[in-house]
Amino acid sequence: MKQVIDFVKANLEKEKQPAHALGFGKYFTDHMFMMDYNEEQGWHEPRILPYQPLTMEPSSMVFHYGQAIFEGLKAYRTPEGKIQLFRPDKNIERLNFSCQRMSIPTLDEALVLDAITQLVTIEKDWVPSEEGTSLYIRPFIIATEPYLGVRPSKRYKFMIILSPVGSYYGGDQLKPVKIHVEENYVRAVKGGVGHVKTSGNYAASLKAQEEAEAQGYDQVLWLDAKENKYVEEVGSMNIFFKINGEVVTPELNGSILGGITRSSCLQLLDYWNFPVSERRISIEEVFEAYYRGELEEAFGAGTAAVISPVGELSWNNQKITLPPSETETIAKRLYDAITNIQLGKEPDPFQWTVEVK
Amino acid sequence: MKQVIDFVKANLEKEKQPAHALGFGKYFTDHMFMMDYNEEQGWHEPRILPYQPLTMEPSSMVFHYGQAIFEGLKAYRTPEGKIQLFRPDKNIERLNFSCQRMSIPTLDEALVLDAITQLVTIEKDWVPSEEGTSLYIRPFIIATEPYLGVRPSKRYKFMIILSPVGSYYGGDQLKPVKIHVEENYVRAVKGGVGHVKTSGNYAASLKAQEEAEAQGYDQVLWLDAKENKYVEEVGSMNIFFKINGEVVTPELNGSILGGITRSSCLQLLDYWNFPVSERRISIEEVFEAYYRGELEEAFGAGTAAVISPVGELSWNNQKITLPPSETETIAKRLYDAITNIQLGKEPDPFQWTVEVK
Ligand SMILES: Cc1ncc(COP(=O)(O)O)c(C=O)c1O
Ligand SMILES: Cc1ncc(COP(=O)(O)O)c(C=O)c1O
Repeated sequence: MKQVIDFVKANLEKEKQPAHALGFGKYFTDHMFMMDYNEEQGWHEPRILPYQPLTMEPSSMVFHYGQAIFEGLKAYRTPEGKIQLFRPDKNIERLNFSCQRMSIPTLDEALVLDAITQLVTIEKDWVPSEEGTSLYIRPFIIATEPYLGVRPSKRYKFMIILSPVGSYYGGDQLKPVKIHVEENYVRAVKGGVGHVKTSGNYAASLKAQEEAEAQGYDQVLWLDAKENKYVEEVGSMNIFFKINGEVVTPELNGSILGGITRSSCLQLLDYWNFPVSERRISIEEVFEAYYRGELEEAFGAGTAAVISPVGELSWNNQKITLPPSETETIAKRLYDAITNIQLGKEPDPFQWTVEVK
Repeated sequence: MKQVIDFVKANLEKEKQPAHALGFGKYFTDHMFMMDYNEEQGWHEPRILPYQPLTMEPSSMVFHYGQAIFEGLKAYRTPEGKIQLFRPDKNIERLNFSCQRMSIPTLDEALVLDAITQLVTIEKDWVPSEEGTSLYIRPFIIATEPYLGVRPSKRYKFMIILSPVGSYYGGDQLKPVKIHVEENYVRAVKGGVGHVKTSGNYAASLKAQEEAEAQGYDQVLWLDAKENKYVEEVGSMNIFFKINGEVVTPELNGSILGGITRSSCLQLLDYWNFPVSERRISIEEVFEAYYRGELEEAFGAGTAAVISPVGELSWNNQKITLPPSETETIAKRLYDAITNIQLGKEPDPFQWTVEVK
């Protein structure tokens, strides 16, 4: 039986910002989706209501024991004015994967898609149309039971909020980023929760990010926690290298997040018959390839910026620069292919997009 | 200049529960402490106000990126009716240590002690007097800036809430616990945040704890993440073994929490000239000691239960039981010494207690 989503309309509409002022994650739309969980009723009362503050007990478990997961995807406006989502099924699947690892009751995936679609439909005027803009969709779950003691919460809130956004890194698309390979701090380890989109992973990453920024870098590249040797991922992007004609990206080893942009890149490369491998790759191998003249490209892939070419990489007191390529890069080719599908400018051979009507 | 803490009295007093109904972390007192941080004012407006729900933006960073830390300590009622805190300076120091690692602005330690003392004074009637009861004090900090994007929050709330508690594990004091040595999941790794009291560590531990409970165990003993070999700590306790007359506990290696009960045990053992060492210890060594007949005791140490003797330990399909000792154990001796100091039943040679007047 399909669950009906209740709707309470906001009395006032907020003013919308011009595209150049959007930034990322600063403005929120007029409505939000909410659904609650308790042991008696399971997930219940799906509803769209005016965007508003939450009333939270100070002892809400999320504040103390961090049981919180989230997703991030985008709705795009096509040149014809249609609105479409990019691979929402993958985000919803990952949301439930995160639930499982974090001992949170899973959601009905069809209902979540319905919730996203209905909410975006209601907020359709909030989907910006300028180059590089989109409506960022943030589904998240937090533990709300008022209780102090380490065990899974018995109450949760699942919410979806929407934010019209410009470019995540505040600059041009495909602007190269400077990356610092982190040698002291680690992000995650196998057996932990690095492969899950849970809030604590991000809190754990802040210090390294801050220190890297203080030294003039944009982002941190994490190495594996066991040997401090193998490349894992960047802040909120998976990492790719092009070495001697082949694209290489770290395999999903249980400590890195399985990015949806990553999987889209892999699928496209395959489709193009471009040599690609998912495997363990050490940072030493990357630097050696550079010194041999075989490191042709490095780039990050994630929902926020889609593709971010790496312009500079520092590790172990060595700094290497990857000059902008004269010829078309694979980074640019992937960026164009993915954004053209997202924006409905090109056919969508994989049926990645879902139109919001 | 000493900061003045504002006070707004609650209109109503809640009903207090009888000692046997307290449990742990379920009931909260009539007032709470709160202080806010923003970039312009730093930490400001320290105040004690009626215990009440918080108003939180859905985009509050704590919900998404998990920037949250906490502490846990207790106020005890002595036989003469005095109220005293146990080593609050150590908790406040650790709170600031957690701030630093989690990119949260640190607090004025004297002000925090003042806040705890004033709040407990106001709530003095909430400090229970029955055996095994106390007033649990939960200072915590959460990121409150409404923003989506991975960077440290620019706004925080520091709060203190109080909960009258019975025994954490719901049973008798010194009741032996059954412990499962975890081989699949890990809690923390060097370079991460395992040595910090941040919410994400606890969320990451839930799955293993659930699975262990389903098999009949009370708690999980974590091994190191790199080699899955060395003993780290239990859920919310540090672990101690007595092997052939010597007490051994894992050294603070950057991935385990530096417990205040742990440090109190070490100090007492030293004071008693009891052989003790802080060092790396493998789970294999523990089991081998058992098979040689040299594993005399195992126990956990933490604020909640003070000392919890381990009655059963399972690892790698081997289950060993440590029968209750006929003679006085070191676990019991430590438990008595610490609780007698906490409750003011014995002199306090280390000046661990602070009276709340
Ligand atoms: C840690 C981490 N890695 C990788 C990614 C990229 O994933 P996706 O392509 O699904 O956005 C993200 C962002 O979502 C992330 O948070
Ligand atoms: C992970 C962890 N280890 C150990 C401890 C014991 O620390 P303490 O003795 O300060 O309570 C705690 C509880 O505070 C904890 O959460």
